[in-house]
Amino acid sequence: MVLVARDTARLEELADRLRTRHNVRVEVLTADLADAAQRATVAERVADTAQPVDVLVNNAGFGTGGAFWDLPEEVLREQLDVNVAAVLELTRAAVRGMRERGRGDVINVASVAGFFTVSGSTYAATKAYVIAFSEGLATSLAGTGVRVMALCPGFTQTEFHQRAGLEMSKLPRAFWLQADQVVHESLADLRAGKAVSIPGAQYKALVAVGRLIPKKLQRMVVTRTVPGRT
Amino acid sequence: MVLVARDTARLEELADRLRTRHNVRVEVLTADLADAAQRATVAERVADTAQPVDVLVNNAGFGTGGAFWDLPEEVLREQLDVNVAAVLELTRAAVRGMRERGRGDVINVASVAGFFTVSGSTYAATKAYVIAFSEGLATSLAGTGVRVMALCPGFTQTEFHQRAGLEMSKLPRAFWLQADQVVHESLADLRAGKAVSIPGAQYKALVAVGRLIPKKLQRMVVTRTVPGRT
Ligand SMILES: NC(=O)c1ccc[n+]([C@@H]2O[C@H](COP(=O)([O-])OP(=O)(O)OC[C@H]3O[C@@H](n4cnc5c(N)ncnc54)[C@H](OP(=O)(O)O)[C@@H]3O)[C@@H](O)[C@H]2O)c1
Ligand SMILES: NC(=O)c1ccc[n+]([C@@H]2O[C@H](COP(=O)([O-])OP(=O)(O)OC[C@H]3O[C@@H](n4cnc5c(N)ncnc54)[C@H](OP(=O)(O)O)[C@@H]3O)[C@@H](O)[C@H]2O)c1
Repeated sequence: MVLVARDTARLEELADRLRTRHNVRVEVLTADLADAAQRATVAERVADTAQPVDVLVNNAGFGTGGAFWDLPEEVLREQLDVNVAAVLELTRAAVRGMRERGRGDVINVASVAGFFTVSGSTYAATKAYVIAFSEGLATSLAGTGVRVMALCPGFTQTEFHQRAGLEMSKLPRAFWLQADQVVHESLADLRAGKAVSIPGAQYKALVAVGRLIPKKLQRMVVTRTVPGRT
Repeated sequence: MVLVARDTARLEELADRLRTRHNVRVEVLTADLADAAQRATVAERVADTAQPVDVLVNNAGFGTGGAFWDLPEEVLREQLDVNVAAVLELTRAAVRGMRERGRGDVINVASVAGFFTVSGSTYAATKAYVIAFSEGLATSLAGTGVRVMALCPGFTQTEFHQRAGLEMSKLPRAFWLQADQVVHESLADLRAGKAVSIPGAQYKALVAVGRLIPKKLQRMVVTRTVPGRT
């Protein structure tokens, strides 16, 4: 197992826990995925056929509160790099060897936000990219033994919303997912060969309804219910 | 009118034609939108409130033939920069002044490909980004006098397919659009206040049907009918 994130201390602590509890080899790679050179280092590790990666999970990503036009350009750039460029480059690095070996899984963490028009949000747009990219790639890899899946969680209890500066206290409890459930359901979907995983019955229903109602109505509803957006 | 592209000679020729035929002031700005510094120069011009831009058309973009895993990383990077980063950064540069002036239009050229799962295509994913981004921004700018619209053409007779190395001879004639028609219909849609413009009755129907049929079936159909893709 190779863990990648920016915070070394946190990664080392997690690595220790995984080693002790599950008796696995854990490697730690500190990298800022907003940095092209550091992404390339991670891509190199992912592409290393001497120590093949069988499952790649592109999980890093972040959202932002506030209006689009008030966000610093660097933040938008960073979001595009982490949420999109890293997914693109690391998937590419992994898929080449996986095709040769005739097996391997790539899970790209998108979001249900990628299915909806979220007012002023570049976050939703980055996730729409990840969904389209992963689905398209899954289709062209059909029959090769390599699986690609877009994981599209709804609101999940993590540090995400606090980091994005989103006020979440008004979200109905039925919409909160636990990380455990997301992991569990998404792995089942991967085994079932799905190209898109939407954990939670409430979110499956929401996405299905979203595809049926007119986009204009959808925009109105989402704008009035999604917290913390302008 | 400010024209931006890479090929100076071509731009100058076009500028001359526009000046003669329509008696307008035309500025030419040669820039490679795959280059961050050159994008910044264009953004500066777009943001210049002394010579305000009333209508921004983000039209530059390209597709690629061939399989995802065989494409050079530079090409993927360039595509993300031109099809996505340029749209993001130039829209941001324009919208700030437009909000202050209480008027202005942004047309972001996406594609109907953004609505479908196109096998192995990063192109479709970049266009899915542009649609989600533009729709979201249109929603948050409602009532400000600033309009944002994603223009989603189908196959249109330009140099696009030749540049992408796509073999198009098998495309049924009914699917070809002329650039004139695309421009005409999209401007009517902009005036009508639409956030998404899909020129041509055949493509409006296709997108509507695409939203109703299961994704899995959609993937199968698109994979078998879209030319030049693996
Ligand atoms: N929580 C939700 O409601 C929700 C819903 C749908 C989708 N998602 C998606 O789920 C994924 C995981 O998010 P989360 O909810 O677990 O949020 P989180 O608690 O904020 O975790 C985000 C993770 O991304 C990493 N990351 C962010 N920027 C990075 C960078 N520049 N370089 C390297 N790593 C970086 C962070 O590492 P560091 O700690 O080292 O910064 C952290 O491990 C994201 O893609 C998110 O968009 C979340
Ligand atoms: N044709 C279609 O079937 C179709 C369908 C749906 C959507 N679209 C979209 O429509 C838009 C226009 O494409 P088109 O059909 O007119 O294709 P095109 O004839 O190939 O024109 C592409 C334009 O983009 C510019 N461009 C490309 N890369 C650039 C870069 N790095 N820096 C600056 N300019 C760059 C080109 O300028 P230079 O000549 O200077 O390189 C050219 O003006 C694109 O966004 C395309 O994705 C086309």
